[in-house]
Amino acid sequence: MTPITDFQQMAARMKGRPRVRIAAIEAHDDHSFSALLRAMQEGYADVIFVGNKDLMTSHEAALAPHAGHYEIVHGADVDDSSAKAVALVRAGKADLIMKGIVNTDNVLRAVLNKEHGILQRGRVLSHVSVMKNPAYDKLMFVSDVAVIPNPTLEQRVQMIRYCADLCAKFGIEQPRVALIHCTEKVSPKFPVTLDYEAIKQMAGRGELGNVVVDGPLDLKCAVDAEAARTKGISSPVAGQADIIIVPDIEAGNVFYKTMTTFSNTELAVTLVGADCPVCVTSRADEEQTKYNSLLMACLSAGR
Amino acid sequence: MTPITDFQQMAARMKGRPRVRIAAIEAHDDHSFSALLRAMQEGYADVIFVGNKDLMTSHEAALAPHAGHYEIVHGADVDDSSAKAVALVRAGKADLIMKGIVNTDNVLRAVLNKEHGILQRGRVLSHVSVMKNPAYDKLMFVSDVAVIPNPTLEQRVQMIRYCADLCAKFGIEQPRVALIHCTEKVSPKFPVTLDYEAIKQMAGRGELGNVVVDGPLDLKCAVDAEAARTKGISSPVAGQADIIIVPDIEAGNVFYKTMTTFSNTELAVTLVGADCPVCVTSRADEEQTKYNSLLMACLSAGR
Repeated sequence: MTPITDFQQMAARMKGRPRVRIAAIEAHDDHSFSALLRAMQEGYADVIFVGNKDLMTSHEAALAPHAGHYEIVHGADVDDSSAKAVALVRAGKADLIMKGIVNTDNVLRAVLNKEHGILQRGRVLSHVSVMKNPAYDKLMFVSDVAVIPNPTLEQRVQMIRYCADLCAKFGIEQPRVALIHCTEKVSPKFPVTLDYEAIKQMAGRGELGNVVVDGPLDLKCAVDAEAARTKGISSPVAGQADIIIVPDIEAGNVFYKTMTTFSNTELAVTLVGADCPVCVTSRADEEQTKYNSLLMACLSAGR
Repeated sequence: MTPITDFQQMAARMKGRPRVRIAAIEAHDDHSFSALLRAMQEGYADVIFVGNKDLMTSHEAALAPHAGHYEIVHGADVDDSSAKAVALVRAGKADLIMKGIVNTDNVLRAVLNKEHGILQRGRVLSHVSVMKNPAYDKLMFVSDVAVIPNPTLEQRVQMIRYCADLCAKFGIEQPRVALIHCTEKVSPKFPVTLDYEAIKQMAGRGELGNVVVDGPLDLKCAVDAEAARTKGISSPVAGQADIIIVPDIEAGNVFYKTMTTFSNTELAVTLVGADCPVCVTSRADEEQTKYNSLLMACLSAGR
């Protein structure tokens, strides 16, 4: 499979595949609904709308042409709807979860529920952003800008594994992983750099699968070969990173917000680590980001 | 004085002012020399070249028209040159220091020297970046992306004071200060947010001078009023920050590198906190950044 290098290719890649079954929680608001409708129209998704049935009535006309590809399941309230969506995944009747007009906290409570949830013991829920900027000829898989505040070594390893799994769905067989830090020096003054050393050793022993890992690298050197050369850095990752592992949520959040505020970047986000992707875009996200995120979740959940 | 809102205005502001006297350390390389020559040509700088005299011979022809506005002082090696430049500042014969083709470490050793240096007791050396991006109609004064790894409360306060002093030189009389964090919540889980609370209280008591401080704010909300509204944030700083205080060097460095890699941002950088600005651009910086930085140092050192 040729690697996917932008969002247009992602949509093309879904053509002709079995439809992905989406459990959509309270997705009666216009933004969520139109993203789901588009996914049905493009032929790659079936949708189970879980939520307040009455609030779906305004969408009846739009849904009519898709008979057989959608279903409506009533939820008594947002917690009930969230629990029912999670139950659909556990029962093998849905391949991914999408959040509509409901707080992320409600969805996460159902996902993380010890008895009825979908996070396996020993796994951690994490956040991946996929970005495409015109200045870089690859997609960037970035983790974790939103969920894990100060990752432990184990969590960093899981973040890399999740991103690598996602890369595989995009046809990127041997992703290059940049471990981001403000310099290239390993120093006990910055404990994150000691984690990075340990991760490189694990990668060297083949424990992280088919990935090429290097770091600490600064963000510019990770994606700009010329900058790395100027700094005298020779690295199999510099200038060509697929996966960007940020040191912590502060740096990650600044990266995400800077890209979305000051650069022309297309993006998709998803929660990973649970039994299926959980698509939790927020009100602040742009229309196109919501659609891209749904598309990415479908691609990564695809059967 | 009208506030300066871009780099072109900065150059105009220097016209007709007394020339600033620059002590330039080993500035015989083409990049440093041409920035200094331009500053002399534009009439706002006199330069004392401190360094290896022999290496200056290739520049004799270019210097000839500026007789009376430059001087060459021999330095035996990079440490001697650095020490001599610092001594010129102490003697009141230079208004700022510029680093040429010498490691920052050598310059800092001279600046920080307890006996002969120029950092007063109780002061901290810090880094300020001034950025102009077309998506924002103001300059952003950003600190600290390079020198202080994990600022203490006292250091954060100093960073704000330094930026506010710099803003005053730019005609920004009451700068708005955004304290950056990944959310708007104050929580003991993130000690930086407790520092921010303390800083806001100090600002409220007038202890930080004529500034308006708010935070925690995420980077987007600091500069994008619409994003702040969508998130339901009402703040005197959101959408109009002049000063961006980042939580730590990891977040700061990612911000700086993201802006310079993925956005069309003009910038200048300087070290502040010593008795005069110390201009330490690196080889990796673009020509224009070197010139802007020199210009900014001159504006802020101006008599």
